[in-house]
Amino acid sequence: MSVDTICALATAPGGALGIIRISGPQALEILSHVFSKNLTDAKPNTVHFGHIKDGTEVIDEVLVSVFRAPHSYTGEDSAEISCHGSRYILNKVLELLIQQGCRMANPGEYTMRAYLNGKMDLSQAEAVADLIAASNEANHQMAMSQLRGGISTKLSQLRDQLLKLTSLLELELDFSDHEDLEFADRSELLSLAKNINNHITHLAESFETGQAIKQGIPVAIVGKTNVGKSTLLNALLRDDRAIVSDVHGTTRDTIEDTIDINGITFRFIDTAGIRQTSDQVEQIGIERTYAAIDKARIVIWMVDKEPLQEELSKINKLSENKKLIIVRNKIDKTESTPFTIVKIPLIEISAKHGTHLSDLEQAIYEATDIPTLQQSDIIVTNARHYDALTRAHTHLQRVIDGLAANDSSLSTPHSSLFTLNSPLPPDLLSEDLRLTLDTLSEITGGQITPNEVLGNIFKNFCVGK
Amino acid sequence: MSVDTICALATAPGGALGIIRISGPQALEILSHVFSKNLTDAKPNTVHFGHIKDGTEVIDEVLVSVFRAPHSYTGEDSAEISCHGSRYILNKVLELLIQQGCRMANPGEYTMRAYLNGKMDLSQAEAVADLIAASNEANHQMAMSQLRGGISTKLSQLRDQLLKLTSLLELELDFSDHEDLEFADRSELLSLAKNINNHITHLAESFETGQAIKQGIPVAIVGKTNVGKSTLLNALLRDDRAIVSDVHGTTRDTIEDTIDINGITFRFIDTAGIRQTSDQVEQIGIERTYAAIDKARIVIWMVDKEPLQEELSKINKLSENKKLIIVRNKIDKTESTPFTIVKIPLIEISAKHGTHLSDLEQAIYEATDIPTLQQSDIIVTNARHYDALTRAHTHLQRVIDGLAANDSSLSTPHSSLFTLNSPLPPDLLSEDLRLTLDTLSEITGGQITPNEVLGNIFKNFCVGK
Repeated sequence: MSVDTICALATAPGGALGIIRISGPQALEILSHVFSKNLTDAKPNTVHFGHIKDGTEVIDEVLVSVFRAPHSYTGEDSAEISCHGSRYILNKVLELLIQQGCRMANPGEYTMRAYLNGKMDLSQAEAVADLIAASNEANHQMAMSQLRGGISTKLSQLRDQLLKLTSLLELELDFSDHEDLEFADRSELLSLAKNINNHITHLAESFETGQAIKQGIPVAIVGKTNVGKSTLLNALLRDDRAIVSDVHGTTRDTIEDTIDINGITFRFIDTAGIRQTSDQVEQIGIERTYAAIDKARIVIWMVDKEPLQEELSKINKLSENKKLIIVRNKIDKTESTPFTIVKIPLIEISAKHGTHLSDLEQAIYEATDIPTLQQSDIIVTNARHYDALTRAHTHLQRVIDGLAANDSSLSTPHSSLFTLNSPLPPDLLSEDLRLTLDTLSEITGGQITPNEVLGNIFKNFCVGK
Repeated sequence: MSVDTICALATAPGGALGIIRISGPQALEILSHVFSKNLTDAKPNTVHFGHIKDGTEVIDEVLVSVFRAPHSYTGEDSAEISCHGSRYILNKVLELLIQQGCRMANPGEYTMRAYLNGKMDLSQAEAVADLIAASNEANHQMAMSQLRGGISTKLSQLRDQLLKLTSLLELELDFSDHEDLEFADRSELLSLAKNINNHITHLAESFETGQAIKQGIPVAIVGKTNVGKSTLLNALLRDDRAIVSDVHGTTRDTIEDTIDINGITFRFIDTAGIRQTSDQVEQIGIERTYAAIDKARIVIWMVDKEPLQEELSKINKLSENKKLIIVRNKIDKTESTPFTIVKIPLIEISAKHGTHLSDLEQAIYEATDIPTLQQSDIIVTNARHYDALTRAHTHLQRVIDGLAANDSSLSTPHSSLFTLNSPLPPDLLSEDLRLTLDTLSEITGGQITPNEVLGNIFKNFCVGK
């Protein structure tokens, strides 16, 4: 299969510099046709000053960095042209490269080539897009961990253990006609399988945290009308996002915006105040408030005086399975009187004057339960990975159930469907083990990955990466 | 004077890659504190793969290009870090560099250092900003010519000739007590001075063209109400810029937008249609139409039938010293009848259906009188250069007048003020010659340039260049 030489702008337009990348077997030859020096014999990892020319006309004075296969990002011969950042120049240079035989790269094509040439596995390739999109520390940590092979290493360890399990089982299969021989100790096999499955489950469960960090942790700000919910949202955002007035029921739409606290993104949802109302639009807003509480992981219940028993019951009922923070607002006003409450964090603020806002931010951060991430932490952030882990878990669970069925004393609660009267034959178990291995391999792309799956993975990349 | 080491983001945020530049005596030492390899002994013009780290935490996997004084853009030790283009990463890397002793670069500081270190003269430094801002071919050609030393070379030739003139005059001055000696032939000196002055005048005169190309050539679209002026503007822009209706007097504000034709920018000005009206707002619009015609270099007079003698006189009067194009619109309608006119280009179009628009664009382009630019053409685009050339011309004119006064047969019309009864002493002439030389030197900054002038020149650059 002949491989095209591709080119693309790798930086955003509008800066002092713009970088054009070119990669493929003809990269240095094509570039030499438009550059003032011949680069076909240039040493790898060297930088060359010269000019890009269109015939005798100089288009730009540039620096060209030369990389040679396999020691480049894509694993191919490639070059980066550092131009002055004018749109005219960047378009013209791309035009010249295309005239000489390049074609424009597709989104993510550089990284796809890096994957196809064995420079990184599929989970690392996916991490590149996440890394570029990461806007805060937590997202950056997760993407960098994945890029540096965090998940790949973990999966590779699990594969080794699964292969050990398979070989022990297949040994038994080969000698299954010798009924007096039992090479593998079933209880030892079962214990090994359960241990692997625990790791898979643990990884799959991290997806919830991964999603929360990636998309922002939803925090609902709720309470009666006119307690200052919109004022609090504006204070947290340091912005006039929501309309604020003294009129009860000013906010009707739920208003969302994000704030980073200690490197984690929170999605704050300001809601309509809860009260009995005959205003239909307001009533719809109040229904949306309940929906917002349902989606939230953290609920900030805002009051400006001690809540009555009735409100407290409602608070407790609505925020089941949520982290709840009670905020007493308007501490600068005499109508707002102190009170105490047990087992729920209570923060006293003045949203209007910004008093004790940092205490509230700290309480919100602590309510996440998300430990400070280390780059060694492995968090699944990708739905494709989560899906594969869930399927691998199902396959492995069948192996466990099968093994347990052979030893009723080791039977697990999950095994009810598979509890047979006679032991499962080892060849069925090893088929399920093979499926577990294949499914895990999808994540790193160790098996041959169909083109449509690759196309789907790389289509959301930016061009030039 | 100790020199700071500076850093800045040189690309626009938001791409696949972001480039951070660092330059100054400590550049490689500071970078080595945050990079996974020690670069203090790295060879010049080499590229290094590694990671930027904050303690043990990896911030990004990057490529670092190393340059060494004096063979770098700034003439200092410097490096470019090619990072993944996330805002988080780019901010973090800058933060780490600043912690290690860099400071953020001021706008244009890299290029200012290049100038101060003799890597380019002042006119070339100014061309860098023009090059980055150039959005079409003509602007690009002018900036590239200047960057590649077009003006500098021309001025250097003029300086050589002025120095020759000066030395000939001073030779005469040294021997002025020997009345019988006359080393320089006055008529030859005068001819040389005039020749130099012609070149200076020619350069200064190119400023008008340079400005027109840089800012766009103003084209006014005028005519009676409802002949289709706004429809034409929209058709030329391929956009719904102006509100179009069948109501006479729809357009009141003058509406401006730019179009590139053959690499030159034109600023089209749609105007209120000219008619007698009692509507005060419309009347103000019509007054602005006359003002727009006054500013335009090209006037498109739009009609939908043969203009009467009265309108023709008005057309001729208003467009004195302008290039005039008459456009007959609505050729698809029967009410629009053909006519002929002498000495003025007449283009027949349907703005509504886009018929013959390319003929009109060609006529507009030809009306500019701007020859197709070559990179060897020297066009002054910078007001600072124009100012210096104008002052140099004044000084040299005094030299010419002085020389001419010594030989009344060679007196020029300019010399009336300086026509004295006795010959001007050569020492006065050589003082004027020195001023001419100094003034020309301001353009390339060959003389010591005051800090405030430098600050003024570089303040409009982007950071990172």
